[in-house]
Parts: sequence; C-alpha cells; structure tokens
Amino acid sequence: MRTFMDENFLLQNPTAVKLYHDYAKEEPIFDYHCHLSPSQIAQDKRFSNLTEIWLGGDHYKWRAMRTVGIDEKLITGNASPFDKFMAWAQTIPQLLGNPLYHWSHLELQRYFGIHEVLNTSSAFSIWEQANEILASDSMSIPSIFSRFKVAAVGTTDDPIDDLAYHKQIAQGSAVIGTIETKVLPSYRPDKALMIQAKTFPEYIKSLGSAAAITIKNVNDVIEALAKRLQYFISNGCKASDHGVPMVPYTVASDKEIDEIFAKALEGKPLTTLETDAYQTKVMLALGELYAQKGIVMQLHLNSIRNLNPPMFDQIGPDTGFDATHDAALSDRLAFFLGALEKQHSMPKTILYSLNPNDYYVLATHMGSYQGGGIPGKMQLGSGWWFCDHKDGMEEQMRTLGNLGSLPRFVGMLTDSRSFLSYPRHEYFRRILCNLFGKWAEHGEVPADIDLLGSVVKDISYRNAQAYFG
Amino acid sequence: MRTFMDENFLLQNPTAVKLYHDYAKEEPIFDYHCHLSPSQIAQDKRFSNLTEIWLGGDHYKWRAMRTVGIDEKLITGNASPFDKFMAWAQTIPQLLGNPLYHWSHLELQRYFGIHEVLNTSSAFSIWEQANEILASDSMSIPSIFSRFKVAAVGTTDDPIDDLAYHKQIAQGSAVIGTIETKVLPSYRPDKALMIQAKTFPEYIKSLGSAAAITIKNVNDVIEALAKRLQYFISNGCKASDHGVPMVPYTVASDKEIDEIFAKALEGKPLTTLETDAYQTKVMLALGELYAQKGIVMQLHLNSIRNLNPPMFDQIGPDTGFDATHDAALSDRLAFFLGALEKQHSMPKTILYSLNPNDYYVLATHMGSYQGGGIPGKMQLGSGWWFCDHKDGMEEQMRTLGNLGSLPRFVGMLTDSRSFLSYPRHEYFRRILCNLFGKWAEHGEVPADIDLLGSVVKDISYRNAQAYFG
Amino acid sequence: MRTFMDENFLLQNPTAVKLYHDYAKEEPIFDYHCHLSPSQIAQDKRFSNLTEIWLGGDHYKWRAMRTVGIDEKLITGNASPFDKFMAWAQTIPQLLGNPLYHWSHLELQRYFGIHEVLNTSSAFSIWEQANEILASDSMSIPSIFSRFKVAAVGTTDDPIDDLAYHKQIAQGSAVIGTIETKVLPSYRPDKALMIQAKTFPEYIKSLGSAAAITIKNVNDVIEALAKRLQYFISNGCKASDHGVPMVPYTVASDKEIDEIFAKALEGKPLTTLETDAYQTKVMLALGELYAQKGIVMQLHLNSIRNLNPPMFDQIGPDTGFDATHDAALSDRLAFFLGALEKQHSMPKTILYSLNPNDYYVLATHMGSYQGGGIPGKMQLGSGWWFCDHKDGMEEQMRTLGNLGSLPRFVGMLTDSRSFLSYPRHEYFRRILCNLFGKWAEHGEVPADIDLLGSVVKDISYRNAQAYFG
Repeated sequence: MRTFMDENFLLQNPTAVKLYHDYAKEEPIFDYHCHLSPSQIAQDKRFSNLTEIWLGGDHYKWRAMRTVGIDEKLITGNASPFDKFMAWAQTIPQLLGNPLYHWSHLELQRYFGIHEVLNTSSAFSIWEQANEILASDSMSIPSIFSRFKVAAVGTTDDPIDDLAYHKQIAQGSAVIGTIETKVLPSYRPDKALMIQAKTFPEYIKSLGSAAAITIKNVNDVIEALAKRLQYFISNGCKASDHGVPMVPYTVASDKEIDEIFAKALEGKPLTTLETDAYQTKVMLALGELYAQKGIVMQLHLNSIRNLNPPMFDQIGPDTGFDATHDAALSDRLAFFLGALEKQHSMPKTILYSLNPNDYYVLATHMGSYQGGGIPGKMQLGSGWWFCDHKDGMEEQMRTLGNLGSLPRFVGMLTDSRSFLSYPRHEYFRRILCNLFGKWAEHGEVPADIDLLGSVVKDISYRNAQAYFG
Repeated sequence: MRTFMDENFLLQNPTAVKLYHDYAKEEPIFDYHCHLSPSQIAQDKRFSNLTEIWLGGDHYKWRAMRTVGIDEKLITGNASPFDKFMAWAQTIPQLLGNPLYHWSHLELQRYFGIHEVLNTSSAFSIWEQANEILASDSMSIPSIFSRFKVAAVGTTDDPIDDLAYHKQIAQGSAVIGTIETKVLPSYRPDKALMIQAKTFPEYIKSLGSAAAITIKNVNDVIEALAKRLQYFISNGCKASDHGVPMVPYTVASDKEIDEIFAKALEGKPLTTLETDAYQTKVMLALGELYAQKGIVMQLHLNSIRNLNPPMFDQIGPDTGFDATHDAALSDRLAFFLGALEKQHSMPKTILYSLNPNDYYVLATHMGSYQGGGIPGKMQLGSGWWFCDHKDGMEEQMRTLGNLGSLPRFVGMLTDSRSFLSYPRHEYFRRILCNLFGKWAEHGEVPADIDLLGSVVKDISYRNAQAYFG
Repeated sequence: MRTFMDENFLLQNPTAVKLYHDYAKEEPIFDYHCHLSPSQIAQDKRFSNLTEIWLGGDHYKWRAMRTVGIDEKLITGNASPFDKFMAWAQTIPQLLGNPLYHWSHLELQRYFGIHEVLNTSSAFSIWEQANEILASDSMSIPSIFSRFKVAAVGTTDDPIDDLAYHKQIAQGSAVIGTIETKVLPSYRPDKALMIQAKTFPEYIKSLGSAAAITIKNVNDVIEALAKRLQYFISNGCKASDHGVPMVPYTVASDKEIDEIFAKALEGKPLTTLETDAYQTKVMLALGELYAQKGIVMQLHLNSIRNLNPPMFDQIGPDTGFDATHDAALSDRLAFFLGALEKQHSMPKTILYSLNPNDYYVLATHMGSYQGGGIPGKMQLGSGWWFCDHKDGMEEQMRTLGNLGSLPRFVGMLTDSRSFLSYPRHEYFRRILCNLFGKWAEHGEVPADIDLLGSVVKDISYRNAQAYFG
C-alpha cells in the first residue's frame, strides 16, 4: 500500500519514477494558455486568506460544492471566508475520484507544505497554517513564478485591450521588480465573432475605436482585427484563442455578409446560417493572418455555456453552469481546414474539444494538414476542462500517440484563473512519465532512458517553447 | 493464477478484498428500478425447472443464443425445457468475455450452490441439482428477498394500473406472509407520451377511466396523469421512469398541442415536430409534478427498439431485437433541463443512456443543475442494459467520479425481469470495491479504510435509501 | 524491465505466454481483406531496396513523416531511395506510442532478422542488411506466403476486372509455381454506387461492356452487377466490400431512380437525397444477391477522404489525407438492415467503422439480426485503419465480448497494400492472448487452457476459415 500522494504519486514503476524525478520534474513551465489576470500580476496581488485565493473565482470548486448539497450562500453568497472554507472542507471527502481531490492536495503540499488530508477535522489547522504562509513573501506572484520555474504565461485577452499591464510587466516595476517569466497576451476575438450577442453592436464600436477605423462592413471588421493583432504581436503575442464552440462552414458573398452584418448592428435576429456565414468569413481571414504572422490558432470546440437560467440571472457567466456539447464536427472541419489549406494559409493549429468522443475526428483531420516542414504543426490539445484529469489526460495522450506523434506534443497548460494551479503541470508530467514508464517496463518501447527522458523533457517544456517561441 | 470466480472474484488487491468483505457485502439491497412482476411476488410464483426461471423471459440470453447459431425453436419455440437448457449450456462457452458468463455462474453459485462451470458436459448434473433446489422452500420469493436482504424493490407500472398486487404485498397475505421487502410501484407513463402509437387513442380512454376524467385535450391528460401519480404516491411510489428515448424540446401553444392531440385521437399521422411538441408539454408538466411531490425522475435515453421486422411480427417486443441509438442530446437537454429549472421545478433526476458516448454530455449537463441543498440531486445512472457489465460499470463510475461526486452515487439497480438477478448487486459492489481498492493501493486516495468503507457502504445501499426513502 | 519487443512482446502473464506460443502462433493466416496487387503476386514482384518495399506505397508512413516535419520531397518526391529511408529512420523515434513503431520493428525482425532499434545511427547498417536479404529468394512472394502460412488472401477488385491474374495464380505458373495460398478476389462495386462521381458515366459504360449488357436504367446496373458477381464467384470470390462510407436509407420508386440515373449519366449534379435513393436501391439488391450466393458483405463506415485539396491535386487519392467521420449511424442502420431482414435476404455481414464511438451502435444493431443458424453471422469488424493498434484492438474485442460473442469473432485482416504486413496477425494474436490470459489470471474465465487455447485458435484462424470457406 502506497502512502497517499507521496513523492512517487502516480508513478507506478521504477522507470516512471526515474523519468519523472531525473528528467521531467525540473523542466521549466511554458503555460501557453491560462486566464490569469495581467493586472493582478502587475500589481502583485496578495490574498488575505485561503478562501480568497483558493475559492474566490474557482467555478470548478463551486460546482462541486453544489453537487454535494452545500448552500449557495456558502459558495458564492455572503457567508464569511472561514465558513466558506469549512464548507469546502466538508465537500472534499465527497470528491474521492474527482481531479479536484488531487489538485487540492497537491496545492496544499506545494504552496503551503501541508501534507495532511483535508476534511472537517483537519480544516481549522490547515486554515491557520495556510493563512500564515499567505501573509509571507513566499506567496508574492514573482516568488510563485520563480519557485515553479514559470518561463512564460499566455494570458487571454480581448483585441480591444490596450495591454497596459503586459507592457508594465515586461518593463519591470517597483512592485514586481524584473521577472524572468514572460507574460504574453493571447488574442481572443470571440466578441467580434459572436454576431448574435446583444452586446455585438457596442463591441464593434469599441473595436473600431481601438483600431482607429470606422467599421461599416465585414472587411472593416477584418481590417480592425488585423490591426489589433499586429498590436498584440508587437507586445509579445504568440497565440490566438477561439472559444466559439463551433467550426464555421457556410460560404456567402461579401454582399450577403454585409447585409447580415448590417442586420446585426441594428439588433435584428439572425438565423443560424447567417451567423455561420459571418463567422466563416471572419475566421478564414483570421486564419490567413495567423499563418502569415506565425501565430498559433487555438480552437476550443463543443462546449455549451450558461445552462442554468436562474443562476445565470443571479451570478452571471463562468460560475459553474457549463457542459459538453455533442455537435458533429467532421464535415465542418473538412470544410474549414480544407479552405485554409486551399488558400495556402494554414496556421499552426491546436484543436481542443470538451467532448473526448471528438479526439479521433480531431486527430485524424489534423493529420491531413501536417507538413510544411513544421514538426507537429497541427496539435491535439491537452485534456481540457471537464477532460482535464488523469483518465482524460491518458486518453488524450494515447489517442494522440496512436494517431499522430506523441513525442511532438506541446503538452500541458493550466487554463486556470488561479495562481495556485502550477502543480497541474507536475500532475500532467507524472501521468506522462507513468505512461512511458509502463511501456518501457512492458518492452513496448526501448528501455533507453536517455531517449525516453529526452521525449519527456520535450513534452514537458521544450516542444511548447519551440512551438510558441 | 486465481480460481475461477472464487470468493475474491474481481477483487484484485488486499484493500479491495477488505472493502468488499468487511463493508459492502452485508449491506441490504435497494433495487430501485426493476421489471419484476407484482403479481408473481404477491402469488409467490414458483418455477418448475431451471429453464422456466432462467430462460423463460430473458431476452439477453435469447439474443446470445441466436448469436452463436442456436435455432429459434430452442430459444422461444416449442422445444422442451430440457432441450432449451441444453442449448443454453452449449451457448455459454461462446460467451467468454460477455457479462452473461459471469452473471450465469454467479446465479448458479448464489441460488443453487453450484460452483461448476456450465457447459454441455456439466449441464445434466446442473439441471438435476438446480431443479431439486427450485422445488424446495428456499426458492420461495420471500426466501429470496430475505436471503439477499432486499430492502426495497421498485417495480415498473403503468399509470392506469390499480396496484392491487402492491397493496396485497404491503398488507401481507397467507401466501407470502409479512415480508420486510418494500415493493414500491414506479410510475412509467410512456403510453401517455407515445402519441404516435396506434394504441394511443385507446390508451387515453383507459387513462381517463382510471382517473375518472373525460380527456379532451392535453391539459386533461396532464390532470389525469397527476391524479394517477397521486394514487401511486399513496401506494408508496418514490420514482417515475421514462423509456421514451429522446429528450423533448419543441415549444408550441396549448392550442396547437390540442390540435395535434385531436389528430392523434383520430388516428391521423403526426410529424416528428408535432410528436415532440406534445411530449414537451406533457414532460414539463410531469417534471413539475415530480418536483412538487419529491418523486425521482428517471430518463432512459438513446435506445432504439424492435429492429427486426419479421421477428417482431413473430414474437413481439422485448425479445432481444433492440440497440443503442446515437442521437445528439446536448441541445435537447439544454432546453428541457433549462426549462424545468426556469420554472423552479427540477425534480431529483437520474439520466441513463444506452450509449456510453453520452456520459460526458449527461454528467456535465446534470452538473449544471445540482443544488437546492440536496446532495447528489442529479445522478448519472448506472451502466444500463448493453452497458451493464464490468467495463461499462467502471467507465460509468470513473466518468461520474471525474465529472461529479462518485461518493454520492445512488448505485446499482437490476433492471431485471428475473428473481435470479440479485447477485448483480454483488457484481457491482465487487467492481466498486476494486476501483477504490486500486486507488488506495496506488496512493491516489487516502489509505483510510473507515473513510473508504463508509463511501462503499453509501454507494452500495445508503445513498439509494436516502435518495428514494 | 522487459527487453524491447522480445519473444513475449505484449504477453504480460504466463497464461498469455502459453496461449500465444502453444496455441495461436502456429495457426495459418486467413487474410480475408487486403489490398495486395494480384499482378504483383502473379509476377512474383521483387523489390530492389527497403524503401521500395517498405515506403513505396504506404500512406500511413507518409502521413507520419509529414507530421514530424519531413519535407515532401523525401516522402513522395524525387529524393533517392536511400535519402527517403534515412528520413524514415529520422521519423521513427518520433513515433513512440504509435502502432507504426511496433509494426516497423516487427517487420524488421520477422522478414529480415534484424532486432536492432531503428534510428539514424542504426539506419545505414539496417539498410545494407535488409537490401541483401531482399535480393535473396527468401523474399519471393511464394516464400513469404509459405513462411507466414498464408492460407488465403482476399484482394480487393472492381466488378469490371477480368481477374486474369487471379486465374493465373490459381492455375500456377513458371514464375510462382503452384502455391498453397488461395488468392481470392473480393467484389468491391464502389464505382457503381458513387453516382455523383465525375467518372460515373464512363464507369457505367465499362460495366456494361464487362457484363455484355447495354445499361439504360438502374435495373440494368443491378443485372450487370449480378452477372459480374457470378463471374467473381466462379473465380473463388467469397466476400464483397463497400467503401461508400454511409449506410443508405432513402426509398424511391424505380421511376424516380431511373430519372436520377439519367441525370447522372448526363453529368448533372445530384442532391444528397437523390444519391442516397440510388444507393439504397442498388445496395438492397446487392444485399439480396450476397444472401442468395453466400457472399459476405463488408461495410466500411464513417471515413472521409481526400481532405487536403492542394495535396490531392498534387499526388491524388490514398496518399495520407483521410480522416474519421462522425455521422450518426443508428437510424440508417435500422432502415437498411431492417429492410434486408424484411426481404429475408440478410447476408453474412461485417460492420467496420473508422470511428470507435460507433462500436456500441454497430454491435447492438448487428445483434438484432443474428440467427438463421449461422454462428456469428453478423460480425463487428476488427479495428480498422486509424483504429488498428493495440488500444483499438483491445477496445474492439472488449466491446464485441461485452455485446456479443467474442469466441465467434472472425478476427484479424491486414487491409494492407504491402507484402510486409503479415506480422500484424502476430501482433493481433498477442493482444488477443494477453486479453484472455489476463482474464484467466484474474479468475474471470476458467483456467482451462484447452478451452481458452481452442477459442484463441478459432479467433486466430478457424472462424475466418469457416466463415469465408
């Protein structure tokens, strides 16, 4: 019987242990996609207690608390930080088998040196210990970055963002000093694509202002987006990101699309096809820009959001009411990726899906557009959100291995809003090393530790560094 | 090498062994969903030979026999009971790798004390031994219930049923005496929903009679269903069950629905949308009733039935000619569950699918409606029918664990027509204990046997008891 | 730690070792579906170097090379054979976790006696050794067939093919002598079904010529296909094969279909429904013919092909630009298989899908049409193409086991264009033996080595032999 989450956690054989401790563990982190707040980084945001940093914005935990019957007052309501923490401690034992169980204990271990199991008995002592450490300088953001060897962080930013905080961080400041971690903006133009949203007309005005263009038609939108992309690039941007959950595939003339665009600006309702025609036009143009500029295109597919109407009215988006979608992707991908390839403008692309059923479709489609001399140009994204757990990561890596090149995988990202999430890279690396270790022990790959160690280093850090660098 | 199906069957490590034998094994059974016949229970139906009790109504076995080439005469035809049994003995070795292989041998072990492997050599001796035991009082239905500690049985009943047998069982009788097993009716109004069926007009008349209402429109249907639900509740009903394989999501006015309803009563054909509009109206009304009355709503999704036209003509439904369907569920669930939540009437709900590809969609949608202070209010149903096997159960439990709270899972049900099915709870519990045992051995959960034992007891019995109690 | 790919490769327990070496290993091969060239067999095609035989037509390898960034010149371009081989040697280490890694090393071991790991260091010596062996008589096609005990090979042939090479092989010749391997044509009428293809009118003329019929309508097409099928049967044909990726389910009158057919012959565009109506008519007629003649019907579903437009223009089809499709199959299968059963003409059928998500749908639908006294009449096809790897084979076998009869499975096929692919049967048998071995070690099947050995022999060879024989 192994001790709970000891130093060889998830490493089930000697080769895995060696691969992790001697090769993967000390690699830096290139966290190419997250939702950290640039302003919090620039201002070295400090957290006054464990509830604030741990439960403050984490809708994964909120959702879990609702599942086990915790009252909303203790989740997003006005209960005291301590009562909220105790409600979380009460929740945790009900999450055996859930990644939050592992993540939470890893975070207690790595940030606070606490190796106890969290439950209602241990909660008070953990609360006290953790809060004490939170008050110390070891929990400044530059300290965290340095301790976890965070080489780069890709934030998620709107094209109209002025990137003031990114500039401030890059230049260094009295608050954070000069840090080695690169904080890179990522270009996420969802609001320019979601033409059916109520806020679209207003957003288009803001976009026009940001780009100093009067936007009258779809080509103006594209021009504005191109200008903003250039601005992002000049501030270190390496990647874009798309949260619109569907691949567009409706061809229409510019004239038709301009009529659709005009209707949208007047707040008139659009059909699904009209929405899709607009998105197709803009996405193909963006793909071309990304290819020209060497920007990675990330597509996050098959999510469906804000499902609970009363809770949406009460506490808004990103609060734990989202789900996996099951739209068929193959015909749409065939159109969209085929069209990009036809115009000779396929960017480096990472395809994610919130539905693991899509992995075969994604990995085989992307395999049809590899090439141009870029190793691993098309990537199957790491297990995302509801797929981001041990079983999900293993499934994603095995599928990628079977259908493409696992050694060229760009690896893990946190996708997180929290500064406590860096141990998820450790979690991923342990699972990765265990997979290769198991293969080696079984004679399925050569027992060549240097070969395997090099592959594991590549997937842990070096591939991402080369791909985005 | 382990002995075939010995006392530690499916328990692959010491913690699993301990969890099963010291915690799970002796828990009672709350079999909340099955297809046992109330009249057979009330009358203490006795079976004259192994073929009658084992092969009499079991379309899983019939289907397997066809698969290996057995003539229909020996399956549902007029061959002798002995010849049918021999055909089954001939089939069994061809089912290595199929759950029927395990179930059948578990049933021989637990009901008849027979530990031999069934094949054509052992068949005659097994036939003789089993028939002898069938003739003894140990195989009365009260004895079976008592031996397997069956605390409760949820039968499946039509709203027009008078529940006479349930009353008789509850009151005790000379035939069965006073038994401790609660035999609870479950409310399954499929016939009131399948508006496109030929028998619909006649059914509506019967429903009207049962409810003492002249049904003229959809609101009358709902009123009649509400009255019958109340009658069911006064006879111990805790749950409803829906076999209509699709989630409705077509909104129409009452006037439109009444026109659809009138067409249906005249036997006119309906479009898919018309059918769906009627079902949407009735299902939303039923959901509201269930929420008000504390009745659990069970939805069984993505089945497709009666696929073989000649065999349907010959031997009717429920004879082994059904399959998994692959309709997209996410948009429909978003509508239906969202609408229930919007009207503040989400009942406790269990979502089952015959397609394991749906688990992510089901588990993430349901996670968006948890709350109201009910732990595990929304449940992912246990591996159902074609998914009811070791691999399927493990997949369902791992998915639920990763996406929700496994410790709050209401666990196993037999879904069976046979009194020989109770060892399937044992089968499930062994798989459950093995899963937690493996995690503990690997250090993925704390090696705290009381914690894990308590979770295993909860999932084996106590959660279901609390959820339906 | 086990040696890389030693004699017990993939056999993780003693029972698996025994099952493989004592039972499975020496069984002959019935390779019922492949893409070998009959002319190459008849002419005993010899290969002058490792690149020609190994990389010459293998789009799996080409695709992998593109994935790791190899220039197209070194893949399908005019680089020298040696340079192409070196590019492949450079690719191989990037394929850890991909079946090509195992297949390639098995091929080096079994054909060339080379047990080194292929990489850029070992490449030159491997190149020299392999080319020397290629020049020897041990690499004649009759020698290969004999060494691997290839009892039968099912090629893939167009109905208009005159089968001259098949006749020549059957009769023996000075070139190849009299070989024991049966080289059987398989009937693949895709071109007669793909009515929307530009080449359709021309193909119909050729089909008419081959059948000595003037084709004027759909019934003429069917008559011509029937005549050609009869010709194939008289030359040993046992199976048909369909690559049209979708199951047809559109009913139309013969008059309507003849209008559609006339439009197609004039080169006019057709709607999806028109295409489907024509295919439905022809497929139902073919199904009836197959049932009458005892021909196995193979359906290969959910592929999507030729996705990369510039590469298709440059190097054509079957060059590594295909993917998994995700069309819903259940309603279509219900129609098509139901219609065949209704007309009492269900042939022996093997259902393959390129999307493993379909396995439940395929296996449960096919389970509804088993019978007629033919053991395992309906088959779930072995892991195909992108699913043809260790994880995929295990998933296919477990699913088949859980939903049908694994012991009746007709087993593996190479689906290959290469004479180097026979070790894939070994690969499959190792995985098969490991599965049964694991079950036996865990007490999940009886530890009856003769029973298990017999099952393993059946699945390795005897079932296929009986099914196609």
